[in-house]
Amino acid sequence: MTKKRVLSGMRPTGKLHLGHLVGALDNWVKLQASFDCFFMVADWHALMSEYEKPSTIREYSLDNVVDWLSVGIDPEISTIFIQSQVKEHLELNMIFSCLTPLSWVERVPTYKEQLKEIKNRDIHTYGFLGYPILQAADILIYNADAVPVGLDQLPHLELTREIGRRFNHLYKKDLFKEPKDLLTSSPKLLGVDGRKMSKSYDNTISLSETSESMHGKILSMFTDSTRIHKSDPGHPDKCNVHSYYNVFFPQDAAGIAAACRQSQLGCRDCKEDLARRLNELLKPIREKRKELLSEKKKILNLIEKGNLKAQAAASQTMQKIKDVIAL
Amino acid sequence: MTKKRVLSGMRPTGKLHLGHLVGALDNWVKLQASFDCFFMVADWHALMSEYEKPSTIREYSLDNVVDWLSVGIDPEISTIFIQSQVKEHLELNMIFSCLTPLSWVERVPTYKEQLKEIKNRDIHTYGFLGYPILQAADILIYNADAVPVGLDQLPHLELTREIGRRFNHLYKKDLFKEPKDLLTSSPKLLGVDGRKMSKSYDNTISLSETSESMHGKILSMFTDSTRIHKSDPGHPDKCNVHSYYNVFFPQDAAGIAAACRQSQLGCRDCKEDLARRLNELLKPIREKRKELLSEKKKILNLIEKGNLKAQAAASQTMQKIKDVIAL
Repeated sequence: MTKKRVLSGMRPTGKLHLGHLVGALDNWVKLQASFDCFFMVADWHALMSEYEKPSTIREYSLDNVVDWLSVGIDPEISTIFIQSQVKEHLELNMIFSCLTPLSWVERVPTYKEQLKEIKNRDIHTYGFLGYPILQAADILIYNADAVPVGLDQLPHLELTREIGRRFNHLYKKDLFKEPKDLLTSSPKLLGVDGRKMSKSYDNTISLSETSESMHGKILSMFTDSTRIHKSDPGHPDKCNVHSYYNVFFPQDAAGIAAACRQSQLGCRDCKEDLARRLNELLKPIREKRKELLSEKKKILNLIEKGNLKAQAAASQTMQKIKDVIAL
Repeated sequence: MTKKRVLSGMRPTGKLHLGHLVGALDNWVKLQASFDCFFMVADWHALMSEYEKPSTIREYSLDNVVDWLSVGIDPEISTIFIQSQVKEHLELNMIFSCLTPLSWVERVPTYKEQLKEIKNRDIHTYGFLGYPILQAADILIYNADAVPVGLDQLPHLELTREIGRRFNHLYKKDLFKEPKDLLTSSPKLLGVDGRKMSKSYDNTISLSETSESMHGKILSMFTDSTRIHKSDPGHPDKCNVHSYYNVFFPQDAAGIAAACRQSQLGCRDCKEDLARRLNELLKPIREKRKELLSEKKKILNLIEKGNLKAQAAASQTMQKIKDVIAL
């Protein structure tokens, strides 16, 4: 039986961090066993928010792919490619743009939310409004069966299905199938300052973080503000450091919580232990990164191969589309 | 001295008619002497309004090019090409979309006008809102020095300049020059029913109209409703038939107007004369069309050559853009 196809992507807007690992990459690695995975560097989507400083997009595109490979994405099994290098994305994006009512994109819930929330750059642009249409093109050009999404992305996937249905309806074809959501409930990981982990807050631990730098960041984390002395009982439920144990070392988290509550484990020791454990976790990733980066040309070749594989799949769909929309 | 470059285009949404001839093509033919002309079949732009019935776009693309050649566009001098076949248009369109404020396109005067006026199709789409951004990409990807426009298109050209300036300003480059308008005051030609000549009113005389069909259409034209008998003096200023003399045979129009006013020329004779004259005018175009259509493969080759020439020019600009926006 042929595997069902999955499409997922990341915007190359910065270095990948622990939030990406638990929020997406761990899941991507698992998906490879049961799906034909297409993993996309969404550089056009990155440009939508980073157009004022586009010079880093290429650098992060490569760096993110290196991270993907380092955590276990296998280019022999999965297709790794760059969105901008497969011209069919923009072609289908334009076709979908022509048939998507303006109101459909204006009413996407994340859109107005982001206009309000994102303050440090101007995204009141025509391109940003079209963000979910390009996403629909990304997914449907590969006729993906499923897309791993978080709850907040569900409306985008619903719009993708609506656009596909509209195309099928307008041209009386059964060309696009309806991609299913693979809702993945990933644990929420906060930044070292207790806010959402995000590069704009400068509170991340990146996958390529050095052992020293990570140690410093973890020792700087706030724990339980009501616990002044080690002899005070701790409240691990309210402690950001402990949430890291829950996410990364769930098998030991209960024991550590008990030791904290019973004043057997102090915050300093607890953080030292976390730093040591995380370092063990990141060490193989860091080493794989180093190895990969020493052969940059090999990675570029690998991406080039992925681009061609993706284009072959995309042009199959485009061929069928051109039976309907012949330009 | 190298010629300055001109970019102009037409949307392949129907057969070309006399309105296109006097409104644009006559001017295109003249421009060839002094400019390096790029003439584009704007099929993506056609899709923006024709997406509900896209099957005719390809057919009209070819048919329009045949008309261009028939009226005297010379593919040895000018570059004839199809927008959708030069991928750089959509790439620059996406880049411009990312940096164009939504309000800039929302406030284009023709946009709201067309939303109100166009009733027979639904253009309340995301794509149609972006119409002038794609136009800007069309013009600036060739770094055109000038664009022949009518008065109503001036705001679009102004937006093109604004977008080019915004790019130059954001990335501190002097990459795009500001294209000038070649304002051409073309005579207004009404349809045979006295309304605006338009295929949706079914009141056109196409460039490929047969002699018989044209004869019938011209004899059906209203002249001067206050003139019942030939002996009544006519009012050529208010007569649509006479306006055709003004447009196509200005050297004879004054004499004919005098004869009409002095009741020497009846409406029937006047129309017979017009049909005969227009037939003479269209005969060589019709014959050239026939000749060209007998060698369809030659035209396809010629377009293919034009596409390659256009792409070579477009990719030169794109190379410079990629120094700034490296994806």
